[in-house]
Amino acid sequence: MSAISGNLIHRLTLYHCILNYTVNEQEFVSSNEIAAFLKIDDSQVRKDIAACGIQGLPKHGYKVFDLKKSIEKKLSFNEQTDIFVIGAGHLATALTQYADFKAYGINILALFDNDESKIGQMINGKRVFDINRLENLIERMKIDTVILALPPQNAQEMTNRLVKSGIKFIWNFTPCIIKVPDNVIVYYENIVSGFLQLKL
Amino acid sequence: MSAISGNLIHRLTLYHCILNYTVNEQEFVSSNEIAAFLKIDDSQVRKDIAACGIQGLPKHGYKVFDLKKSIEKKLSFNEQTDIFVIGAGHLATALTQYADFKAYGINILALFDNDESKIGQMINGKRVFDINRLENLIERMKIDTVILALPPQNAQEMTNRLVKSGIKFIWNFTPCIIKVPDNVIVYYENIVSGFLQLKL
Repeated sequence: MSAISGNLIHRLTLYHCILNYTVNEQEFVSSNEIAAFLKIDDSQVRKDIAACGIQGLPKHGYKVFDLKKSIEKKLSFNEQTDIFVIGAGHLATALTQYADFKAYGINILALFDNDESKIGQMINGKRVFDINRLENLIERMKIDTVILALPPQNAQEMTNRLVKSGIKFIWNFTPCIIKVPDNVIVYYENIVSGFLQLKL
Repeated sequence: MSAISGNLIHRLTLYHCILNYTVNEQEFVSSNEIAAFLKIDDSQVRKDIAACGIQGLPKHGYKVFDLKKSIEKKLSFNEQTDIFVIGAGHLATALTQYADFKAYGINILALFDNDESKIGQMINGKRVFDINRLENLIERMKIDTVILALPPQNAQEMTNRLVKSGIKFIWNFTPCIIKVPDNVIVYYENIVSGFLQLKL
């Protein structure tokens, strides 16, 4: 499990978004300002920022640039992870388009599919490889992290192949549970959960 | 803010997934079994299930059917929400394909875009409407919830239109912060956060 709680990670990435896009032309930002954007308590914001080891200046708040850098350090944005995407459908395509993935340390190298019409195509600058080349390329490129974005009925079988090839981190976008050995970590990108958090 | 914590919602949807797809042919399931799938502590599972108001039977565990129903009740899966999707790109298309959205109470009615080549098309059985018809259809169909799946540079302008039309819930898939009045709720589907939870 993560050493930083999921909630803290979630909030810090949102603060980073604010610093990057919304108050990026200011020199200083206050915890109140950040809290107001997200409609959360400003004491929460101060506590989270303290966890990044940064102090505000009385009456000024935090230096936007310094705060941004300290969040990036806390969340290891500068440690780049090379990733293969398993599947080359709409979700995979959307992920290759996702703004600034690279700024967060996410480097999508290639996609894999078994659909002849997709193999060899370029999607937003990433090549789609034949799924039969998966094991070979994982080994050659020393990949340990994948995004699983394929139909759920194929998820477990593909997971078994990935585990056998030495994959250690699976970011699972399929709406199903996959079985993995103890040394493999799965994060369930459970989209429905976001909807329920919006409505409940 | 949600009356049920985001973490509890996240775990309950995963338990539901297990009950639905993985142990669906068993009559009983134990907290140990569920915990093992997700590599979490079984005391956490028991606590979460108790929050759904269901008791296990000694030596048997929980009835799969009853536990499933009690999670569905706790998370209001039977209260259907009609949703418009703003944007008709790859992400929007992936969401219309998402397995079992309807089983969770998410009913995507239509998509909206300003791209002439998309307007009038059907995507997985959902029509793409001209974005100019948005306000009219929100009013006629009494929609209060939208998915925001459009380029980030258009997100705030579109949010202003949505708020003016009476939208109360915005499930934001764009990687940016949007400003809304106090009576509007935004959930940030912050994809990068999932990656960081996987790796940190």
